[in-house]
Amino acid sequence: MDKLLLLDKEEQQRRVARVTAGMNTLGADAILLADNASLYYLTGRVFLGYVYLTAAGDVTCFVMRPVELDGPEVVYIHKPEDIPSKLEALPSAPALELDALSYNTVVRLAKVMNTTAPVNGSAIMRMARAIKTEGELKLIRQSGLKQEYVYRQIPSLYREGMTDIEFQIEIERLSRLEGCLGQFRISGSSMELFMGNIIAGDNADAPSPYDFAMGGAGMDPSLPVGADGTLMKPGMTVMVDVNGNFTGYMTDMTRVFSLGKISPLAVKAHECSRRIHRELAAMGTPGTEARALYDRALEIAREEELERYFMGHRQHAKFVGHGLGIEINELPVIAPRSRDIITPGQVIALEPKFVIPGTGAVGVENTYHVTGNGWECLTNAPEEIIELI
Amino acid sequence: MDKLLLLDKEEQQRRVARVTAGMNTLGADAILLADNASLYYLTGRVFLGYVYLTAAGDVTCFVMRPVELDGPEVVYIHKPEDIPSKLEALPSAPALELDALSYNTVVRLAKVMNTTAPVNGSAIMRMARAIKTEGELKLIRQSGLKQEYVYRQIPSLYREGMTDIEFQIEIERLSRLEGCLGQFRISGSSMELFMGNIIAGDNADAPSPYDFAMGGAGMDPSLPVGADGTLMKPGMTVMVDVNGNFTGYMTDMTRVFSLGKISPLAVKAHECSRRIHRELAAMGTPGTEARALYDRALEIAREEELERYFMGHRQHAKFVGHGLGIEINELPVIAPRSRDIITPGQVIALEPKFVIPGTGAVGVENTYHVTGNGWECLTNAPEEIIELI
Repeated sequence: MDKLLLLDKEEQQRRVARVTAGMNTLGADAILLADNASLYYLTGRVFLGYVYLTAAGDVTCFVMRPVELDGPEVVYIHKPEDIPSKLEALPSAPALELDALSYNTVVRLAKVMNTTAPVNGSAIMRMARAIKTEGELKLIRQSGLKQEYVYRQIPSLYREGMTDIEFQIEIERLSRLEGCLGQFRISGSSMELFMGNIIAGDNADAPSPYDFAMGGAGMDPSLPVGADGTLMKPGMTVMVDVNGNFTGYMTDMTRVFSLGKISPLAVKAHECSRRIHRELAAMGTPGTEARALYDRALEIAREEELERYFMGHRQHAKFVGHGLGIEINELPVIAPRSRDIITPGQVIALEPKFVIPGTGAVGVENTYHVTGNGWECLTNAPEEIIELI
Repeated sequence: MDKLLLLDKEEQQRRVARVTAGMNTLGADAILLADNASLYYLTGRVFLGYVYLTAAGDVTCFVMRPVELDGPEVVYIHKPEDIPSKLEALPSAPALELDALSYNTVVRLAKVMNTTAPVNGSAIMRMARAIKTEGELKLIRQSGLKQEYVYRQIPSLYREGMTDIEFQIEIERLSRLEGCLGQFRISGSSMELFMGNIIAGDNADAPSPYDFAMGGAGMDPSLPVGADGTLMKPGMTVMVDVNGNFTGYMTDMTRVFSLGKISPLAVKAHECSRRIHRELAAMGTPGTEARALYDRALEIAREEELERYFMGHRQHAKFVGHGLGIEINELPVIAPRSRDIITPGQVIALEPKFVIPGTGAVGVENTYHVTGNGWECLTNAPEEIIELI
């Protein structure tokens, strides 16, 4: 028998407290969670089943698979319809994950909970997970250190005559050998990415359907993003934005590599990205509006006459940063219409990037931990454009 | 400008006809599709937006991203609420993807379509996609050939002293270099897997939360499936079940490798798996009930006194095969309570597997195309257990 609960009691209590605070805010007296990210958040492992949490903080884990999990909170069931008979009473205002679960799954669980108007449990979980606990920060820091270690080795992987996808595959292998789990968790079903995004030269300017900072045509129209087989040649930049999930919690880091001499405009834009990082990190004290950070980033790009290249060229992404943790798209969102407020405990990836036609993508992405004393960078590989040849 | 529609007109008409047939069966006069797999099915590419299809077979593509797509069926919109004004009339019985889209997405789209009781468009798409068109079969065949080419090279990747995850990483790299796209599409949010499942020795007996044929503890409790760092040693089998998505359409193939001498019981079980393949492929003529195939597989395992090892040992999977194409879990399902009927044009992965304690997993998985003249195997790498040392 394995213990289901892999979090120590204190750490679990912290996470439970964050969720119950959100339940109180939205008026839910219980929440029934089924999304893998939620189960992992509240127990430290993924299983097939449900976490049921009351506003008083009592946790029950209803498990369907795997077999042989143990603990005082574990109740085995065959199907969700078994749950009500295991509860003392049904809640009067239960929450369900209305953004993370399918329509039919919610309808089924709502029947189980005997409600026709579930509270939005996805909103509760987003609020809870926006501020990281001690235990979460520890795992994020570990990913940052490992990702940095991988990035420092990237130049050694380049061989003359490589295509972007060949370079990417060697980076994937190195990351995996250093412990990268590969899985890239994204909230929402329309976002897809395999292991990361490596874009060389003008492929950076190929518009993509996904809501990532950068595009790329991809290798196949079934997955139109990232490397497209471009031969890496002098005058190009190669932007590397590859999976930082080493612990179940991710960091997000982007660095730029160059071949031969690149255009002064690209160098200028890269330095502008670094300036945006410095200014936003200094400006983003607790209480700052996330959208003010976006506005300032755009303003800096304008001041330096780089607006038309900012966050894309043929197509522009309308954000400059995002929270992350278990998933790559958590709160806060650093975007024009964001209503999020910068708060200690947030973990934010900032990615002011530029696409320079004829050269490629430039700019830095770092993951920061917001503290009362400033933003702490968790991804500390060198930020300069690194020459591969 | 790029053409949105990447299917030739005839191929698209075949797919449209399959979907409209399902719409007629379920009484929908239009369907509004948003799931990436559906958009890819009907257009040959993934984009951010919607395919709107009437029962008469008229297709409109409402596109939000990427920019610059072209074609007579393309209408750019900013948000789904823009759709009604672009339609001549709203349908009276619209279908939406109730299994593939989130609750909140369906609620929003139902409002757009002015309905409170949408028909289940996921069921329509599942039925449509269960029978492959000529164009789909071509892409599946291509994946089968490439996957076979990769599998034949697997023994050359083994080095003494490797762990299962190190072996897996070399297989991943080889697959990617041969064109594997990596993306492993699964319908349903509770199933997760990175690039494939490689399990060595007794790790095969570690129960997993996911509904795959085999388990494995995985490298981290955030993704508890597959390789767990087991050192590959004499007496063990290593089962390789790795991503066959080379074209947007997948094949699924499993082969077993051994180190040194393995137990006669494992050899017997592997041969039993091959017998199940032969018998089921011969028995599965059009009109056969899918569950009869499952029953026969279990019966053969019983006849050979291998039932307790069949589809797992500590935990048992309750199916022996599954349809596949764009996603790994399409119709039909070869399971005890399946109501599916074997039909020409289906593509089925059959995976009778056994877990032998002290040795590991054995058994073969092949992908078949069901024809009026028998099952055609699309994954033709050698089926014997191949010795690595």
